[in-house]
Amino acid sequence: MLYTVKISISLKEGMLDPEASAIRHALLNLGYETDDLRTTRVYTIRFNAADKNNASEKATKMCERLLANPVIHSYSIEVMG
Amino acid sequence: MLYTVKISISLKEGMLDPEASAIRHALLNLGYETDDLRTTRVYTIRFNAADKNNASEKATKMCERLLANPVIHSYSIEVMG
Repeated sequence: MLYTVKISISLKEGMLDPEASAIRHALLNLGYETDDLRTTRVYTIRFNAADKNNASEKATKMCERLLANPVIHSYSIEVMG
Repeated sequence: MLYTVKISISLKEGMLDPEASAIRHALLNLGYETDDLRTTRVYTIRFNAADKNNASEKATKMCERLLANPVIHSYSIEVMG
């Protein structure tokens, strides 16, 4: 059965996020002062799996093997059904 | 008051997404066949605003002026409070 899975990948607490710094800087130049800015990458993937558990397991493997770098990233997986 | 706003930016339907294609290709090489893959960039921004409406307006301006390209992107804004 086809499942849609939402994988959210963000930098671990304390990791430098140069993209976030650049955006905060650009926003400040436009007159928008910000207190904090975090970037998250979300992949919405549709693929075949036996059941919801299997979909979640497959998504975990995709994160571990390709999408996330365990040293710097944390990720969360949401099986949308 | 400080508000946390979640801004999600994705490519409009039908726009080419080379990053998504590259990831699908890499996943296939690892043995994971996918039916579809979409990428979304989420910015979680904390900033001062008068009230919830003002926070939403400011976030819209940030999208229009910097974060999103209206020709190719669609965006959604969620004021988390």
